[in-house]
Amino acid sequence: MTELVPAKARRRFRDGLRVPTAGWAPGHAQANLIALPRADAYDMLLFAQRNPKPCPVLDVTEPGDPTTVLAPGADLRTDLPAYHIWRDGECVAEVSDATSHWRDDLVAVLIGCSFTFEQALVEAGVPMRHLDQCCNVPMFLTTVACRPAGALSGPMVVTMRPVPAPLVATAVQVTARYPAVHGAPVHIGDPAALGIADLSRPDFGDPVTVADGDVPVFWACGVTSQAAVMASLPEFAISHAPGHMFVTDVPNHTYAH
Amino acid sequence: MTELVPAKARRRFRDGLRVPTAGWAPGHAQANLIALPRADAYDMLLFAQRNPKPCPVLDVTEPGDPTTVLAPGADLRTDLPAYHIWRDGECVAEVSDATSHWRDDLVAVLIGCSFTFEQALVEAGVPMRHLDQCCNVPMFLTTVACRPAGALSGPMVVTMRPVPAPLVATAVQVTARYPAVHGAPVHIGDPAALGIADLSRPDFGDPVTVADGDVPVFWACGVTSQAAVMASLPEFAISHAPGHMFVTDVPNHTYAH
Repeated sequence: MTELVPAKARRRFRDGLRVPTAGWAPGHAQANLIALPRADAYDMLLFAQRNPKPCPVLDVTEPGDPTTVLAPGADLRTDLPAYHIWRDGECVAEVSDATSHWRDDLVAVLIGCSFTFEQALVEAGVPMRHLDQCCNVPMFLTTVACRPAGALSGPMVVTMRPVPAPLVATAVQVTARYPAVHGAPVHIGDPAALGIADLSRPDFGDPVTVADGDVPVFWACGVTSQAAVMASLPEFAISHAPGHMFVTDVPNHTYAH
Repeated sequence: MTELVPAKARRRFRDGLRVPTAGWAPGHAQANLIALPRADAYDMLLFAQRNPKPCPVLDVTEPGDPTTVLAPGADLRTDLPAYHIWRDGECVAEVSDATSHWRDDLVAVLIGCSFTFEQALVEAGVPMRHLDQCCNVPMFLTTVACRPAGALSGPMVVTMRPVPAPLVATAVQVTARYPAVHGAPVHIGDPAALGIADLSRPDFGDPVTVADGDVPVFWACGVTSQAAVMASLPEFAISHAPGHMFVTDVPNHTYAH
């Protein structure tokens, strides 16, 4: 399954397969989707500019246009495994096809995803516990406030990956090379420092067992854009379901320096 | 003069001194200014997102607010050595104080400037000919088209620095560490490849003598944002005069990786 090229992965999702995309189409970058009316899109671009760790922008589409330079031929309305539909800051539906909800004034902001650097971590010898445990990566709302932008504000969301202590420095070095997909960790160690009470109860995704000798390592997460929608109540938005990303045609190494 | 801290440099400019800022307040980042009405600011943010080499955004201000997180206490209306006032894509005035032209709906986009990496180049042994010749850096319009965004389109503008051939690789390595201030060169060598007919006749700034054994090296330049204004005719804009930058309080190394 994970051997598929991006277009084949997207076709599976378009045909209805609903799975988290970590490990899919290895070697190709994945992206968060947040689509907002053009009238709200300036605030989202500004929010991203002011919060580049959680919200590094990879592409922004023309109003109403469901295509992106990140994957010519793909359709952003159908090619993700699952979508959330937002009204006034509330998630009102989860769908596998967003076509009937799409609007002519929607601008899709595609934000880098940390799944993109997981292959580099594995190649550097850092185990990915959520891949080994065949589940989604755990994501947490934090008490770290983003810098507001217009009507948008909210907390930073993070992903957590348990890393064996001797490999933590390696994990920092490897991911620091990928700033466009969240880069280096924002925190290493104590979950309480981020306001996270219980690692076994993520706000999004699945819990992952932290092995003896593992250190929890936290990276900024593009779901921060959804947390801003939750906190700031724009009239309408469409996002991916956390962990169910847009698989692009862009090679991972494009985003490495 | 060049030993001044940023606040003292800005005060000199506020008091009327009109000089290019290359070499001023060494160790501190400098920025391009392009201020547009809020109604046109989305297009500029999108243009910057789509053209990150010439237009890396360092900060975006609130509408009407002449202050920036890049230099608390500074006033963007007065603290640059020279401004250009634009109406319908035409430069209608050059002023040393933009206060009387400022508007409540203006959003200032501050874009990284390559002067920021010049100190690192000098420390690596790469001579800066324009500093040695006490003049502004030469800038050229190219035939390289930027990716359009909304109403904005236009050619990429570049700076040119003559680099001794044995040091060209060093210049690439040093500047590649600074993507937020244009990063690695966009071209090395033949000016004709960028559509530049005559290195001795820059479109902005001053001509710089290319010594025997020097190779012309070209970096993307934030004046690209002004070229987009020239080509795309927004109703109103205020920019810095090329080479007469906003001197920030941000240490250069903040933008290095």
